[in-house]
Amino acid sequence: MDPAFEFLCRMGDNTLVLGHRVSEWCGHSPVLEEDIALANTALDLIGQTQLWLGLAAEVEGAGRDADALAMTRDAWDFRNVLLVELPNGDFGRTMMRQCLFDAWHDLVLAELRDSTDDRIAAIADKTSREVAYHLERSRDTVIGLGDGTEESHARMQAALDRLYPYVGELFETDAVDAALAEAGIAPDPGNLRDAYDARITGIMAEATLTIPDSRFAHKGGRDGVRHTEHLGHLLTEMQWLQRAYPGATW
Amino acid sequence: MDPAFEFLCRMGDNTLVLGHRVSEWCGHSPVLEEDIALANTALDLIGQTQLWLGLAAEVEGAGRDADALAMTRDAWDFRNVLLVELPNGDFGRTMMRQCLFDAWHDLVLAELRDSTDDRIAAIADKTSREVAYHLERSRDTVIGLGDGTEESHARMQAALDRLYPYVGELFETDAVDAALAEAGIAPDPGNLRDAYDARITGIMAEATLTIPDSRFAHKGGRDGVRHTEHLGHLLTEMQWLQRAYPGATW
Repeated sequence: MDPAFEFLCRMGDNTLVLGHRVSEWCGHSPVLEEDIALANTALDLIGQTQLWLGLAAEVEGAGRDADALAMTRDAWDFRNVLLVELPNGDFGRTMMRQCLFDAWHDLVLAELRDSTDDRIAAIADKTSREVAYHLERSRDTVIGLGDGTEESHARMQAALDRLYPYVGELFETDAVDAALAEAGIAPDPGNLRDAYDARITGIMAEATLTIPDSRFAHKGGRDGVRHTEHLGHLLTEMQWLQRAYPGATW
Repeated sequence: MDPAFEFLCRMGDNTLVLGHRVSEWCGHSPVLEEDIALANTALDLIGQTQLWLGLAAEVEGAGRDADALAMTRDAWDFRNVLLVELPNGDFGRTMMRQCLFDAWHDLVLAELRDSTDDRIAAIADKTSREVAYHLERSRDTVIGLGDGTEESHARMQAALDRLYPYVGELFETDAVDAALAEAGIAPDPGNLRDAYDARITGIMAEATLTIPDSRFAHKGGRDGVRHTEHLGHLLTEMQWLQRAYPGATW
């Protein structure tokens, strides 16, 4: 498989699957302000998906467009990290996942703005502004709830304990990454880990939360080897319309 | 629409949708014996669906088979009563729904064995033996749990209170029923109500449960006018494979 196509699917599948997960909160958030904020985040992520998967389709050159990639691939063709396909859990866990993802997303987009591929640099430039705002929000929420009441603190600590084993996959490096790093198209993910750890350490300290010691990492999403059972269920719902009414337009 | 086709869809959609709901328990039942029993009930119902929808497809004569009817119709074309599409709830509620349905199912099949349409009479004859056993099991369970502990009694009463407003739809009569009753093909559903009430009154008395006074009935399922929001979600999961891989064989 073409490394550029693979990489673009990883970027676009992350934003697509997380965007869908976040959209599940629409109408269910604890307060109206958060409901609107989460819906906006979901829309940002789905908009970014159109850019990443649109370019992936262009690079693939097989006649598929972004919609076809999003709506007609099955679970084994998805390249998102496992972190984003996990069920939402409570509001605190959703925001913890968002913060853990945003802190990485923001870093990788900053690097991608200098990509030797102008199309990738342009997408990174456009989307990095949205993501900087996502990070500001999710960080503030994690700090507010972590350093909040006894109940909110306990829930945020539980969320961090549960999600932290899914962080390591963001920094895995394989042949695809090596090829792109070599060509100056994308950074080697492993090289972002120190900057990420510095960020997360600062945020969790402010949030009075304890980062787990273990760096054990669940993986298998970004290389498509083994997704969690949750992805198939998510896709079944997400792809329902295009599966039931192929090529539907309105 | 041909009344015979409509009637056969009503029979087959009831068994299909209830069969799918009951299959959701597979691997989740409170004890192994119940897990196997529920899985067997689900298999019976899905087997019955093949007979009913198979005949429906034959009567329709439009080139669709039972699989096509089950797996490619959308919610508005389903003709099951609302009772069977409701989420399972706890084990007690599932068994209460089963008992309320079985008591009707057993009565209607007894009548259908005398149908002037031999094909319908044959299906009724074959399936009525399975359904007699379903009823025996669900009735015994409702009695055992209703006349059980304080907790099980409270749950069974809550289940009856919740589900009873969905019973009335089983006895609705419309032009389809009138046409079939006139031709001696199927009984007028309204004529079964007294026998049903006698059965349910006996069962609930033994179960020390109180039947709600109100005969208010939710409806809209068997005539397809308005299903609950639950049916679309059920079909999305149930039809996933045929939607994603149309015409798949193995």
